[in-house]
Amino acid sequence: MAKQITKREENYSQWYNDIVKKAGLADNSAVRGCMVIKPLGYGIWENMKAQLDKMFKDTGHVNAYFPLFIPKSFLSREAQHVEGFAKECAVITHHRLMNDPDGNGVVVDPSARLEEELVVRPTSETIIWNTYKDWIQSYRDLPLLINQWANVVRWEMRTRPFLRTAEFLWQEGHTAHATKEEAELEAALIHEVYARFAEDYMAMPVIKGAKTANERFAGAEETYTIEALMQDGKALQAGTSHFLGQNFAKAFDVKFADNNNQEEYVWATSWGVSTRLVGGLVMTHSDDDGLVIPPRLAPTQVVIVPIPKPTTEILEVAEQIENRLKALGISVRIDRDEQKRPGFKFAQYEMEGVPVRIGIGMRDLANQQVEVARRDTKEKMPVLLEGIDKYIQKLLEDIQLNLFDRAKKFRDDHITEVKNFDEFKSVLEEKGGFIKAHWDGTTETELKIKEETKATIRCIPNEEPESPGKCVYSGETSSRKVLFAKAY
Amino acid sequence: MAKQITKREENYSQWYNDIVKKAGLADNSAVRGCMVIKPLGYGIWENMKAQLDKMFKDTGHVNAYFPLFIPKSFLSREAQHVEGFAKECAVITHHRLMNDPDGNGVVVDPSARLEEELVVRPTSETIIWNTYKDWIQSYRDLPLLINQWANVVRWEMRTRPFLRTAEFLWQEGHTAHATKEEAELEAALIHEVYARFAEDYMAMPVIKGAKTANERFAGAEETYTIEALMQDGKALQAGTSHFLGQNFAKAFDVKFADNNNQEEYVWATSWGVSTRLVGGLVMTHSDDDGLVIPPRLAPTQVVIVPIPKPTTEILEVAEQIENRLKALGISVRIDRDEQKRPGFKFAQYEMEGVPVRIGIGMRDLANQQVEVARRDTKEKMPVLLEGIDKYIQKLLEDIQLNLFDRAKKFRDDHITEVKNFDEFKSVLEEKGGFIKAHWDGTTETELKIKEETKATIRCIPNEEPESPGKCVYSGETSSRKVLFAKAY
Repeated sequence: MAKQITKREENYSQWYNDIVKKAGLADNSAVRGCMVIKPLGYGIWENMKAQLDKMFKDTGHVNAYFPLFIPKSFLSREAQHVEGFAKECAVITHHRLMNDPDGNGVVVDPSARLEEELVVRPTSETIIWNTYKDWIQSYRDLPLLINQWANVVRWEMRTRPFLRTAEFLWQEGHTAHATKEEAELEAALIHEVYARFAEDYMAMPVIKGAKTANERFAGAEETYTIEALMQDGKALQAGTSHFLGQNFAKAFDVKFADNNNQEEYVWATSWGVSTRLVGGLVMTHSDDDGLVIPPRLAPTQVVIVPIPKPTTEILEVAEQIENRLKALGISVRIDRDEQKRPGFKFAQYEMEGVPVRIGIGMRDLANQQVEVARRDTKEKMPVLLEGIDKYIQKLLEDIQLNLFDRAKKFRDDHITEVKNFDEFKSVLEEKGGFIKAHWDGTTETELKIKEETKATIRCIPNEEPESPGKCVYSGETSSRKVLFAKAY
Repeated sequence: MAKQITKREENYSQWYNDIVKKAGLADNSAVRGCMVIKPLGYGIWENMKAQLDKMFKDTGHVNAYFPLFIPKSFLSREAQHVEGFAKECAVITHHRLMNDPDGNGVVVDPSARLEEELVVRPTSETIIWNTYKDWIQSYRDLPLLINQWANVVRWEMRTRPFLRTAEFLWQEGHTAHATKEEAELEAALIHEVYARFAEDYMAMPVIKGAKTANERFAGAEETYTIEALMQDGKALQAGTSHFLGQNFAKAFDVKFADNNNQEEYVWATSWGVSTRLVGGLVMTHSDDDGLVIPPRLAPTQVVIVPIPKPTTEILEVAEQIENRLKALGISVRIDRDEQKRPGFKFAQYEMEGVPVRIGIGMRDLANQQVEVARRDTKEKMPVLLEGIDKYIQKLLEDIQLNLFDRAKKFRDDHITEVKNFDEFKSVLEEKGGFIKAHWDGTTETELKIKEETKATIRCIPNEEPESPGKCVYSGETSSRKVLFAKAY
């Protein structure tokens, strides 16, 4: 009856792929590493976008749009940036196809070679700072608080839908400031916006912290991250906000005259979240019956299913409920299909993660009630028609909070403090999750731990107090504990 | 004081470029033919998007996202399509850069050549119909009513901001249907949605009609267009909706089992509007003082300017007005700048096209009034504080309607019916605008007229009744009149 999916404990990775496919989130495409985002997956992303966009605008940012293409030479202007981004990318060398002289479709026209190759943006710092050079002369032009919603391409060798794809959708903020302090505050502000979005809308608890030098964005002086924990005990980097210092201003020669008419380089931040968040949402809440979507991001929050079929009498009540829910701003859909059986439909909506399902049958109606089922706990309860709109409104909030609490409990249960490296390895293997441990602060130790365990330092948590100790690997002195995990 | 721009009658083309630059709509970029869309230009596009998106959803469409890249071979699957789109496009041949062995930045890694080149989508029919093949098996899978918001690239030789750029932003709808009739109705529905959007939101009157065979979209059986008239007498194709027949279904072998279990090819439509609309908006309404934005699409509808400076007392009143306007859903901004003079600010907001400006000075306040200036007519009037919110709300509607009426009068005054080819040429040269004339229906005549005059057939208008006559060029019989114009 229902579309079967692999159970999580059998094979988490296959379970994830099954959900993506069978809930209709995304599909493979004919282009290596690029996915098709299907209406349900895109609907979740649209809701994420709308909320994030509002949060950015509420904090003074505006949107703009910069070119998809970046001249090859731009990538090598900032020394670290080129190492991080210039390598695996889509390179445009020609601007024309022509009919194959042998009659086999079309071929590249060799006479249409570009003078300088273009790269499809892997991120836009270079093209944007090259533009900011023209926009910034004086302190009066600052700050520039600009965000862009765009597609980017990184030629990844191993891809997974939403989590790692060659092309993905994201937003990238690029701000320019007159002082270091202001840029640092901006990076911290966005870090906080990301954390609030993840927790309040995705119902996904996150740990806020700074990346180590080794894990920083290429070209950043500080990278702030929000780290979430997936159900299989692996971490997911869900959003990053970078303090870029004056690196890009120097690389693109962007100076401003301060109020004493002294020339200074501009201070910068950049920050982004992507369609990867959709993958994080799936792996935070979903179960063996399919997708679970937090109500605040669900494209359809409530579905109404006539039982066993949509008769005139049942549809009349269904439409009344629909109107009352819509008046409260709840997105609702009536299933008017006459062919499929209720059991099939129930399984389908569970697979698609609709937070609340209302079943209406004749026996219920005789009692002036309907059956309400919540997706998160699978509970069903009879609910009187009178007051059902407010009931559903509150239920959606309850589900939202329950999802967060459940995920937070799981996450908190999977932060394990360890004292030595044997413990580190056994916790990593047997339990997974975040491992809290002292680290001596060197990249050398960090890389050795990664090599031996595949665990990386996810972050130096903001809320972790300084406390002297010994590094779990080297035994050297350490000033505070950091969080390790295997990660997506 | 004000930023001077070229007058329209001196040089319309330069006037347009000046507005784009000085109002801050867009900027040139380091990449040939690609523009940077600045916050004001992007803000207008965002408002266009939001409204169109709502109209698409209200008519049953959903959004999805398909890959940026198209395998080269896909372009040659549909015979006409390849002629129209496969030629001038961005071709990706490699997926990696490497450090230049000579130490000069980065170069293309010759070992990273793609097996099959990829093209950056110039439009997505091919990749989408290749995907639909997997999504459509039975009549129950139909209709598919999908839209995509995306960037596309066409390697244009001569570009102009918004009107013709190598990369542009657009939406492209791609629908699949079980019957020819249903697909034709869909193409007509969207044609109507586009016309309503242009007239009700852009305040830009349009003529609805069909394209001639010669002007059709490559691969379409019928192309419906909305044609607007710019102030210089040139037409602008503002949106097109295509009935594609079964051409793409055949090219990508997309069949469905109908309810008698017979296999049939699927029927298709596609339709799109782009950031070109921003250029159309500029050239429909703006004047020698700068941009004029119809209120329904203005990112800032009202600006409040303290005169001469933002004192505490004036700001208090300004904030009261701001709150009352916001409560009505009006977007409003207070100019808190303390350095620039009011005259400078007035000129700036006129340049940026803010529909309504409210000036607040101490003398006004003594009389419990403010000064309200409307951008469309430049009229100024004293308005009492009491009831100002409703006054402004109505004024914005008045401006919206006035802009439409003004543009419609201009457009109607520039539709000239001609009887012979001499008249055709003289009207085209001296007056411009649309020329209504009989045409014999042959591509041969159409092309000769184009060659001799640069005028093209903009459309065969929906509302033009059949009326027998003689072709203005060939003298052959003609069944109805069509509209010619020079066009962007």
